[in-house]
Amino acid sequence: MSHPKGIAILGSTGSIGLQTLDVISALPGRFRVVALACRRAAEEVAEQALQYRPKVVAVADRQAAKAVRQRLQGHTVEVASGPEAVAACAVREDVDLVVAAASGIAGLLPVWEAVGAGKTVALANKEPLVVAGELLTARAREAGARLLPVDSEHSAIFQLLLGQDRGAVRRVILTASGGAFRDFSPEDLANVTPEQALSHPTWQMGPKVTVDSATLMNKGLEVMEARWLFDLDPEQIAVLMHPESIVHSVVEFADGSLLAQLAPPDMRLPIQFALTYPERLPRRDPPLDLARLGALHFSEVPLSRYPCLRLAREVLAAGGTAPAALNAADEVAVEWFLQGRIPFTRISEIIADTLSQHEVRPADSLETLLSVDREVRERLEKDARKWT
Amino acid sequence: MSHPKGIAILGSTGSIGLQTLDVISALPGRFRVVALACRRAAEEVAEQALQYRPKVVAVADRQAAKAVRQRLQGHTVEVASGPEAVAACAVREDVDLVVAAASGIAGLLPVWEAVGAGKTVALANKEPLVVAGELLTARAREAGARLLPVDSEHSAIFQLLLGQDRGAVRRVILTASGGAFRDFSPEDLANVTPEQALSHPTWQMGPKVTVDSATLMNKGLEVMEARWLFDLDPEQIAVLMHPESIVHSVVEFADGSLLAQLAPPDMRLPIQFALTYPERLPRRDPPLDLARLGALHFSEVPLSRYPCLRLAREVLAAGGTAPAALNAADEVAVEWFLQGRIPFTRISEIIADTLSQHEVRPADSLETLLSVDREVRERLEKDARKWT
Repeated sequence: MSHPKGIAILGSTGSIGLQTLDVISALPGRFRVVALACRRAAEEVAEQALQYRPKVVAVADRQAAKAVRQRLQGHTVEVASGPEAVAACAVREDVDLVVAAASGIAGLLPVWEAVGAGKTVALANKEPLVVAGELLTARAREAGARLLPVDSEHSAIFQLLLGQDRGAVRRVILTASGGAFRDFSPEDLANVTPEQALSHPTWQMGPKVTVDSATLMNKGLEVMEARWLFDLDPEQIAVLMHPESIVHSVVEFADGSLLAQLAPPDMRLPIQFALTYPERLPRRDPPLDLARLGALHFSEVPLSRYPCLRLAREVLAAGGTAPAALNAADEVAVEWFLQGRIPFTRISEIIADTLSQHEVRPADSLETLLSVDREVRERLEKDARKWT
Repeated sequence: MSHPKGIAILGSTGSIGLQTLDVISALPGRFRVVALACRRAAEEVAEQALQYRPKVVAVADRQAAKAVRQRLQGHTVEVASGPEAVAACAVREDVDLVVAAASGIAGLLPVWEAVGAGKTVALANKEPLVVAGELLTARAREAGARLLPVDSEHSAIFQLLLGQDRGAVRRVILTASGGAFRDFSPEDLANVTPEQALSHPTWQMGPKVTVDSATLMNKGLEVMEARWLFDLDPEQIAVLMHPESIVHSVVEFADGSLLAQLAPPDMRLPIQFALTYPERLPRRDPPLDLARLGALHFSEVPLSRYPCLRLAREVLAAGGTAPAALNAADEVAVEWFLQGRIPFTRISEIIADTLSQHEVRPADSLETLLSVDREVRERLEKDARKWT
């Protein structure tokens, strides 16, 4: 066995971060946790530091960083603070692979830096590719950085394309469970609570992505990611309802052959694959039992129920700064919904309104994209009364 | 484009042979049909010769060869006769790829010769690997010959393994439709007619393989083929009922990821893949529509209903000459059933009786295996009264 891979986990206290540490614990000797980073979960990240003994802990929130520093007094772990400290974790010499598991736009800058430094990035954070897909993939090509998908859907496509005739890919099909409300009537949808939205039928995930699953915005963001990760035309990316969340994606080839990846809905599998790629290492969980499962179902997405998916497709076609505007509006609207300030159905209305007011510009730099992100948030906060 | 691949089709007038010619016609300029061979279908092979203009037509039956020679008088096609002429097609200098699509043990010798000559062999004929898997794969390794599977199940596995971490394969799952009688009661099974057996629910195939599908012997033979094609332990090869015949096989990896290949049940797809590999070329047929299909079903094989599958597994475990004995008994029994001489349920009884009388020897040479084949046939013909 070669020397342990040096890992930086950005977003170590979130759902993907925790599961990444699970995977690392289950494969002793394979990995060395070099850096842990989080936004503000001081207690949790300090506990992780005591267990995994990284060289550095970076905390974006300076107050929280102080608490971590106090908790780790007497230990040899360096505690750094501020968003720039998080980004610094991603470019360390001793980091071989960056797990980008932050939530939201906050994850963009560290990924940008990691890619610029030619790192291999296991990408769980959707926003970097959604907001800056074109710039980021160009930068990765230039710097020789590798983006390994962690999302189950994109991991599936990545696995399925290995060794295949890439020129013969006709399209990819992302599957969607339909989220928490797939069987709700339009009237009931208007009255759903944050608690209901957070109980996903098949996956255990963070709050933002779980609400995005209920609106199918999550699938829209995944269509955008797939476009950049696999260099596909938007029309080559289809979405199909599949309530069991067992088939994670399908690749259709020009000869009519379809390859599909199946697994129980457990993020530790795609996380592990990204960490160990190109190897596959054993996992102890019981494998999928197709006979016990009995049947796998597929159906068209009823687009009228899911305006967010349509908006995502429009934004992908528009290009430029449009995805940044959609992403910011979605983050704000989902937060408002989780705070109980708006009904579920208003999420898509806020995004649609934002897009109708947004004048699309070319995505010529990261600064342009980040300023669109700020503008949209500021305008929404200013107009909050109109919506909440 | 490089020069057209030179193709020899052994068994050109059978089901796979005809579909191979369909595939070749649909891809003009890609292939050159150099040799056509058949057992005795004089009229059909002569017509093919006039259409595809091969350099040679080989007819195993000498009477039939005379008819072909007469029919092709005045044309520049060479007509050769006898089994040795069929084998000679497989080793011609101008043949790049041999499509081994003969039915039964008759296909073994030409494949043996082709492999010895280092040819790439698209293998549709099950018997060579079933009867002589160990010898044949060793010979292929030695001569640098490549065996490309044409069976839909093995083509699926072959496609799925490309580019994957081979050491991480935990097992493969072959799917079985259950054949024509999957919903019949044991009493009804005793009375089924050859006509009923020949109406397969999902596939259009030749008579022998269609009856073998109804007994699941076909799946047993495929387990044996998979063992040799992919160098797997017999315990690594599972069989699962899947009535739609859409998922053709599944590969399960040690990390719990399953990769599956799906396509409409149409042999032209795996045939084309073997012909064009490593490229995939477009086919015009409408692709699979998972949403329209709605559901895919899976269940355990009720082994008590399918004694032939159990016998095949026993024979694979026994090794040596046992598979040759099983194969010969199955060929004779299926032929008797198709002639209306025995009831359907007697097929497995004849095979079981043959195996109980067969003393397993090491598979030390092709001659040993062919002599077992002859012995079993002779004994069964001698004892025919006992069974028919």
